[in-house]
Amino acid sequence: MSQKDNFFNLHNTAQGLARELAPGVNTRIFPGEQAMLSVVRIEPNTEGKMHEHPEEQWGLLLEGSAVRFQGGEEIAVKAGDFWRTPGGVPHTMRAGAEGAVVLDVFSPPREAYKKKGQGFGEG
Amino acid sequence: MSQKDNFFNLHNTAQGLARELAPGVNTRIFPGEQAMLSVVRIEPNTEGKMHEHPEEQWGLLLEGSAVRFQGGEEIAVKAGDFWRTPGGVPHTMRAGAEGAVVLDVFSPPREAYKKKGQGFGEG
Repeated sequence: MSQKDNFFNLHNTAQGLARELAPGVNTRIFPGEQAMLSVVRIEPNTEGKMHEHPEEQWGLLLEGSAVRFQGGEEIAVKAGDFWRTPGGVPHTMRAGAEGAVVLDVFSPPREAYKKKGQGFGEG
Repeated sequence: MSQKDNFFNLHNTAQGLARELAPGVNTRIFPGEQAMLSVVRIEPNTEGKMHEHPEEQWGLLLEGSAVRFQGGEEIAVKAGDFWRTPGGVPHTMRAGAEGAVVLDVFSPPREAYKKKGQGFGEG
């Protein structure tokens, strides 16, 4: 395998495993062995669903603005902000008026996200 | 601990553990339990040092341009490109004329990077 197969772009929607997390919240998943990346696009004024999982998660707001709900707190985030969500902490996001693009990192990789599908993987 | 302590910004140089990886290649490290983030700034036309480690690494070019050297291949990258570097694969980068800002993710976290210091952690 060429190393080129390990190279991707945030804006290439042909790459990654497509997943609709919630209506208006769509991601493309890139599974690794130790970590998994997820490039999430959230429509304007749209919110995901509060959920939690044992895997550690990091998020980086790439574009737009949003409110992060995490562990019972509500924290406004702008492009360039990033955060750690420890395993087991309930979380979701609501995009602002211009929508939001978020890079999420899961470690270890979430099993439910290793295939195309829908939802936050609770099932 | 407030969840706010888990929130950071790419441009806030007061945050993270400072590390000079090589002359002109400086990072700030954010250790988690399962993954570790590193916000690397590479001066124009400056190159790191070829190295490898068992941890999986992901990189995202946030600003500028660069050439990624990985596994014997040489791949040009622009802002928005991201890549996976499997454990044990030799790698380094050289920034283009405008320099580069890279977000690296290590999983599991690299022990050598859990404290301030210098170098790529080989020692």
